[in-house]
Amino acid sequence: MTAAVCPGSFDPPTNGHIDVIERAARHFGEVLVAVTANPSKKPLFSLEERIELLQGALSHLDNASVSSFDGLLVDLAREHAATVIVKGLRVPSDFEYEVQMAQMNQVLNRGLDTMFMAASPSWAFVSSSLVKEVAHHGGSIDELVPQGVSEALRRLSES
Amino acid sequence: MTAAVCPGSFDPPTNGHIDVIERAARHFGEVLVAVTANPSKKPLFSLEERIELLQGALSHLDNASVSSFDGLLVDLAREHAATVIVKGLRVPSDFEYEVQMAQMNQVLNRGLDTMFMAASPSWAFVSSSLVKEVAHHGGSIDELVPQGVSEALRRLSES
Amino acid sequence: MTAAVCPGSFDPPTNGHIDVIERAARHFGEVLVAVTANPSKKPLFSLEERIELLQGALSHLDNASVSSFDGLLVDLAREHAATVIVKGLRVPSDFEYEVQMAQMNQVLNRGLDTMFMAASPSWAFVSSSLVKEVAHHGGSIDELVPQGVSEALRRLSES
Amino acid sequence: MTAAVCPGSFDPPTNGHIDVIERAARHFGEVLVAVTANPSKKPLFSLEERIELLQGALSHLDNASVSSFDGLLVDLAREHAATVIVKGLRVPSDFEYEVQMAQMNQVLNRGLDTMFMAASPSWAFVSSSLVKEVAHHGGSIDELVPQGVSEALRRLSES
Amino acid sequence: MTAAVCPGSFDPPTNGHIDVIERAARHFGEVLVAVTANPSKKPLFSLEERIELLQGALSHLDNASVSSFDGLLVDLAREHAATVIVKGLRVPSDFEYEVQMAQMNQVLNRGLDTMFMAASPSWAFVSSSLVKEVAHHGGSIDELVPQGVSEALRRLSES
Amino acid sequence: MTAAVCPGSFDPPTNGHIDVIERAARHFGEVLVAVTANPSKKPLFSLEERIELLQGALSHLDNASVSSFDGLLVDLAREHAATVIVKGLRVPSDFEYEVQMAQMNQVLNRGLDTMFMAASPSWAFVSSSLVKEVAHHGGSIDELVPQGVSEALRRLSES
Repeated sequence: MTAAVCPGSFDPPTNGHIDVIERAARHFGEVLVAVTANPSKKPLFSLEERIELLQGALSHLDNASVSSFDGLLVDLAREHAATVIVKGLRVPSDFEYEVQMAQMNQVLNRGLDTMFMAASPSWAFVSSSLVKEVAHHGGSIDELVPQGVSEALRRLSES
Repeated sequence: MTAAVCPGSFDPPTNGHIDVIERAARHFGEVLVAVTANPSKKPLFSLEERIELLQGALSHLDNASVSSFDGLLVDLAREHAATVIVKGLRVPSDFEYEVQMAQMNQVLNRGLDTMFMAASPSWAFVSSSLVKEVAHHGGSIDELVPQGVSEALRRLSES
Repeated sequence: MTAAVCPGSFDPPTNGHIDVIERAARHFGEVLVAVTANPSKKPLFSLEERIELLQGALSHLDNASVSSFDGLLVDLAREHAATVIVKGLRVPSDFEYEVQMAQMNQVLNRGLDTMFMAASPSWAFVSSSLVKEVAHHGGSIDELVPQGVSEALRRLSES
Repeated sequence: MTAAVCPGSFDPPTNGHIDVIERAARHFGEVLVAVTANPSKKPLFSLEERIELLQGALSHLDNASVSSFDGLLVDLAREHAATVIVKGLRVPSDFEYEVQMAQMNQVLNRGLDTMFMAASPSWAFVSSSLVKEVAHHGGSIDELVPQGVSEALRRLSES
Repeated sequence: MTAAVCPGSFDPPTNGHIDVIERAARHFGEVLVAVTANPSKKPLFSLEERIELLQGALSHLDNASVSSFDGLLVDLAREHAATVIVKGLRVPSDFEYEVQMAQMNQVLNRGLDTMFMAASPSWAFVSSSLVKEVAHHGGSIDELVPQGVSEALRRLSES
Repeated sequence: MTAAVCPGSFDPPTNGHIDVIERAARHFGEVLVAVTANPSKKPLFSLEERIELLQGALSHLDNASVSSFDGLLVDLAREHAATVIVKGLRVPSDFEYEVQMAQMNQVLNRGLDTMFMAASPSWAFVSSSLVKEVAHHGGSIDELVPQGVSEALRRLSES
């Protein structure tokens, strides 16, 4: 049984993120969603909120769990005996950057492979940052994110 | 146990192909290498030769087998109960094309997901067509392809 | 009232083509769909068939017409007093190629501008060549092309 | 008569921006240049200055006007009954990002289409940020921006 | 004194080719323009014609010469004691392909480096194939190619 | 004898940087490594440290020297009578950005040409920022950077 890690900042999780995690969970024995504790950009949602939003959106998956990490992904993978990193790719330039990460991770741990999944056409244009920008200006993003995220964004823009 | 299909024309197989298949075989229960019977360009090696070259280079893998296919990949996957297609990507533009294939395959069979693996840096520049061109002009490609392929190319250029 | 030309080989037309033409027809006074008589690759459908398939799929548009051309697009545009070329783009590499055509066309006729529209997410992965390949192998492409095209492809693969 | 919106931060406007607006104004009945009030990066020129610089450079166009916006582009378009967004693209990666915006805007307002125009070869390498950097170090950018912008940059670097 | 090779099929040479060769000749002691004898696509102009067209367009350069090659570029470079390959790049996807060639050439001869020069903005959209297509349909390409090429294309389209 | 400039922020220098400089020094009479005094992002290492790290890693090259610059690269090149800028490219999107810089520099000084060299496959995924991130989290980057850089990073993460 292969264990896979799905890393990301998930600020906030979108339907595209959930779709990739669901598909990974069909093919791997276990999927650990790993939330970056300190992403390079200051996040809109706290680490706790991002974990909670993911847990809400993934409650239907028996073999998926959510945790945080603050260090090297290779260390997290080793701790959880995961041998695969799964990354969703939305656009070609994502690939360019993620390949560098994948190759670096292979240098740090030769047994750890990265597998990329293409976002579904319906979600390929949905980035977390675009979702935040639209929601901030009062646009409706209900069809683009899990219900819990949509509600959380609404609470934020009303406060 | 997840079964995966690695499709390609493998004309001829390179070290980059073998590397991706080896890595896929570490993470999936079974890997079926599927050789395109009739690739769009007329192949240098016959279908039988390409299968034999792959079998020679993959004999150390217990859970990998080689077969041909001439039709839709989704049909082949269904016959072998494979739920994952594994494709190696060498360059960003590979990604652009393969994503279209992956999305088309999802339309044809929603349960069939494509996972991409980046070629190792050492093999990212090694394409089958470049290997053939160099070998045709007498250049040495011994470090870039399995030994069997290197010998087969030498026989061809001597004949 | 601005007249626009939508050039292409349309071998066959897909839902993506039709979507771009429909959207162009909303914003320009007149849209002339210009079918390449002699595309660089030998087409599956004859010029007459391709024109007929387009006319069938565009019959609901009052301000769109279909014709063929065999020469320079700038000459066709001049004859029809069109000042805009509209091209749908599916993937970033389309852009790279089409920009060169657009800049060449500006050299040949400074008053002729090219405007690009991005394919809808649902059709961005649907190319004419992929559609032909899937249909050839008996896959269902009913959701991806106009009904007339779907029937024409079925007739071809049965004959 | 179709009304089009040309959005941007224009910090400062370059010859490339002016060229795209001029070409848009040839094909659409009305062109509204919409200046982002609060761009993501702190602008060098204030909103008022950017509007003034654009008005100076566009005074020869009868059907172009300049205004600011601070919200969703779809809302601005609705207020002005514009049905087209026109964006200039300088490089392939611009396309990748702008397609996501275009598809998001279609989700928010199905009647609003984005049309892309390629920058003229002479201006494709001229970005606002590169212009600012060169001017800051005393390089001459007179051939790359409207005269008013050139003077404004000179005043800044002298102060 | 460093000798450089500028390889290509030059079918026909364009102003972009000449510009890159001129700039290379400013920085290297000697520039050998190497014309592919048997390009993958059947050329419009014979090898002799392509060499003659280049010689005509480069007669003002003291340190440039033209020859043909039919084999590996690394062998040609070794024969002429050239240590640099110079390639012009018109678009980002050129880079992707040419990097693979450059890395392969380094495997075949570690002392041989490839240096890329970006096409001038005025010529980046001018490819040999686009020039042939426009000329074939009677369009004027006089501003895009050397005078000798322009005349040769005219003779061809009149015959 | 041609003099070349290799500009960069080198925060810190990697094996990829050193490899490009070494290869440039084989083909040009003199190579001036020019360290950006004030890069757009706040550097981890001071200007003095970055110069020292480079000098340590380049001590085996007779014709390479290191200096800083804070202004326009064209001015630095003019002062040192350099006629070539050499830039290493790691990924296709580097090319897109650097071409704009190269074309801008040609506008500012027509005699100054930029030549691009592709990173060796072994170093193409090694960016300064990725190296800093891995080192910060205690990962080993000894194989990816010169020894002096590796030690400097270790000192930083221990302090």
